[in-house]
Amino acid sequence: MTEFIPPGTRTIDLPSPFSMRRGGALHGAHAAFETWGELDAARGNAVLIVTGLSPDAHAAANAADPNPGWWEPMLGPGKPIDTDRWFVICVNSLGSCKGSTGPASVNPATGERYRLEFPDLSIEDGADAAVHVVRALGIERLACVIGNSMGGMTALALLVRHPGIARSHINISGAARALPFSIAIRSLQREAIRLDPNWNSGGYDDARYPESGMRMARKLGVITYRSALEWDGRFGRVRLDSDRAEDEPFGLEFEVESYLEGHARRFVRRFDPNCYLYLSRSMDWFDLGDYCPVRQADTQVSASDASTRAGLASIRVDKALAIGVHTDILFPLQQQREIADGLREGGADARFLPLESPQGHDAFLVDIARFGPAVRGFLDEL
Amino acid sequence: MTEFIPPGTRTIDLPSPFSMRRGGALHGAHAAFETWGELDAARGNAVLIVTGLSPDAHAAANAADPNPGWWEPMLGPGKPIDTDRWFVICVNSLGSCKGSTGPASVNPATGERYRLEFPDLSIEDGADAAVHVVRALGIERLACVIGNSMGGMTALALLVRHPGIARSHINISGAARALPFSIAIRSLQREAIRLDPNWNSGGYDDARYPESGMRMARKLGVITYRSALEWDGRFGRVRLDSDRAEDEPFGLEFEVESYLEGHARRFVRRFDPNCYLYLSRSMDWFDLGDYCPVRQADTQVSASDASTRAGLASIRVDKALAIGVHTDILFPLQQQREIADGLREGGADARFLPLESPQGHDAFLVDIARFGPAVRGFLDEL
Repeated sequence: MTEFIPPGTRTIDLPSPFSMRRGGALHGAHAAFETWGELDAARGNAVLIVTGLSPDAHAAANAADPNPGWWEPMLGPGKPIDTDRWFVICVNSLGSCKGSTGPASVNPATGERYRLEFPDLSIEDGADAAVHVVRALGIERLACVIGNSMGGMTALALLVRHPGIARSHINISGAARALPFSIAIRSLQREAIRLDPNWNSGGYDDARYPESGMRMARKLGVITYRSALEWDGRFGRVRLDSDRAEDEPFGLEFEVESYLEGHARRFVRRFDPNCYLYLSRSMDWFDLGDYCPVRQADTQVSASDASTRAGLASIRVDKALAIGVHTDILFPLQQQREIADGLREGGADARFLPLESPQGHDAFLVDIARFGPAVRGFLDEL
Repeated sequence: MTEFIPPGTRTIDLPSPFSMRRGGALHGAHAAFETWGELDAARGNAVLIVTGLSPDAHAAANAADPNPGWWEPMLGPGKPIDTDRWFVICVNSLGSCKGSTGPASVNPATGERYRLEFPDLSIEDGADAAVHVVRALGIERLACVIGNSMGGMTALALLVRHPGIARSHINISGAARALPFSIAIRSLQREAIRLDPNWNSGGYDDARYPESGMRMARKLGVITYRSALEWDGRFGRVRLDSDRAEDEPFGLEFEVESYLEGHARRFVRRFDPNCYLYLSRSMDWFDLGDYCPVRQADTQVSASDASTRAGLASIRVDKALAIGVHTDILFPLQQQREIADGLREGGADARFLPLESPQGHDAFLVDIARFGPAVRGFLDEL
C-alpha cells in the first residue's frame, strides 16, 4: 500500500510500551509532526495544532517542505497563526496513516501490518501521543493548543489529562462528546466500508481494495462537512455537460453529484480504510463526561449533560475561545457553546464565537476571512 | 417478489397509452387508491392526499381495511382531516410498488416485470395519474389537495398542469424544486443500491436481493428524515445492552445505531429497490420553474429562483397553507416559505407556517400535536 507521509514530516518515538486507554499497548510506536517558526529561549511561545480525522502534519509550507499545507492561509509568517512569533507544532493523529503509528503500520511483533489487530483507539491515545511530542521538543507548557473538528476533542482530552500543559485553548468546530446524529453518520460511513467485499475484514491490498466503500464513506462525509446553504448558491440545479453525465442507469447528472464523485475519488486511495474505521470510532467513543461522571442529575439537565459540563469545568486554562459555525450539522453550534460555558465554569476567560459561515463544518478550512481574524485576535492578546 | 398492496386498496385503469412526461408511455397501467367518508351531492367535499416516497394508499383505517394507516391520527371521523365532513382520497404514487403501476409491475408487452425498462418517471406523471383517479371518481374540483414531502412536489405539479383542479392546497414539508443537498443525499442512496452486486442492474429476485444496498439507503434516509435535536434527547450516548451489541469488528454499540438498523430491516423487503430508484430520481428532476423559465434574472435573485417563483405564481388556488419544520434538513424551511410566497403572488390567500417540531422532515407523521391543529384549522375555514 502507498505511503501517505508528506516529505517534511518527522517522527518521535513514543514510550515503548505505549499504553492505550481501552487496553493493550503499542511497542515501537511513533508520532509524526512538523514545526514552523522558532522556539524562544523561555520556551514559552509554542502552539500545538491537533487535527481532524484526515489531515496530515503538513498544515502549511515550511523549510522542510515548501508545498502548501491543508491550513496554508492560516499558518505562516504574518498569517493569523504568525510563525514570526509562535513556534507551531502540528501532530499527525495516532491511528492515522500519515506518519504516526496506526492500523496500517507494521506491528513489530509480527512483521505484518496491524490491520484489525491494532488495539482499540481512543481520542485520549492521540492526545497522550501529542503531549509526548510536545515534551520531547523540550516544552513544559504550551502557549496555546488549537484543535479543529476531531482535534477539538483531542485538545480537550489533552487538557483534562495533562493539567497545566497549556495556558490557553482554541477549540474550532469541536465537541466535548459525540452526539447521536454524528454517531449515526459515522456508523453509516463505517458500514459502507465494512460492506465492501474488498474490505475483507481489514485484509485488503492494493489490488483488492474497498474502493466503493471508501467512496461512499467519503461522499457522506463531504455532504456533512459542508452545508445546504452553500451548495444552493454553488451548484443550484446545474446539470453536467452531456459528455460528463454518465450513460449508465441512474448515473451522475447534476454538478453536485460530480463534485462529490471528484472529492471521493481523490480521497479513497489516499487514506487507509482501517485507519479511517479506527479514527471514526474513536470520535463516537469520546465523552469528556467520563472524567467527571455525574450519576444523579438535577431536574434541568441530563446526567450526560451534567457530566460533560463537569468534565469541561475541571480543565484549567487561563483563556479559551470556542468557535463554531451555524451551518455545521456534524458538530453543531451548541457543542461549541457548551465548551465555552464549561471552560468558563472552570475559571477560564472563555469566549464562544458563533460565525455566520455558509460552509458548514469545514468552514475553518476555507472561510479564512472569518476564522483568520478570530484566531489572530485571540493569539495577539496572549 | 412479495406484493406490498394493502388489502383495502382499489385500482383505477389509467388511459392506455398513458404518456410519460420524459417520453415513452405505459399500456394497461393503473393507479391505486383508498377513500374515506362520503362524496356529497354537489361533489364539492373531496380532499386528495398525495404522499411521500414510501407510503401506500392506506393512510388510515377505513371500511375496507381496519388496520391503522400511516397517517392514522390525522385522518378519520372527528380527526383533523375530518371524514365526517370530507370525502378523502389517498393515491399511491405512480412508480411505487404498493398497487400503482411501477418498475416492479409486469409489462404487458413482455409478460415480464418492467425493472429498468420502465420509462423515465417524473413527479408530473404521478400528478397526472392522481388527477385521473379524481376524475374517474366523478370529481371536477377538489376542495383541497394535500401533499406531504415528495407529495408536496406532486401537488404543485398537479396544480400547475391541471388549472382549476383544486380550490385550496396544503403543502407539508414539500418543495417546488430539488436543491443540491437533497439531490446529494438521494444520489448517495441510489448509489448504495446500485453498488450492491445483488442489484444486478435491476435484475434481482427474492433469493439474490440488494439487501445491504437497501439497508444503507434506508438508514441514510432515516438520518435525514429526523433531526439531531430529537436524537440528542431520545438516544443521547446510551449504549446497547451487551447481549444486543455486536461482537463483530465495528459492529453496533450505541442505541442510535440499533434504531437505524431496526428501521432499515423493516423496510428493505417491503419496498422494491427499482421503484425506490425511480421515485428517488423523480424528486431530483422536479423543478416547478420548468413551467415558467426566466432566462434573464434581475440582480436580486438567480434565474432558477425567479423561474420557481414564476411557476408558483402561475398556480391559481383560493387558499393555501405551506407548513414546514425548522429542524428539516431535507426539505428546509425556506422551501415552504418560497411556496407560500409564490402562491401568494399568484393571488392565493397563502400562509407560511413554520413549526418548532424537533422531529425534522418526518414531523408531520409523528408531531400530530402541532400538525393536527394547523391542518384542521385550515380545512375548517374552507
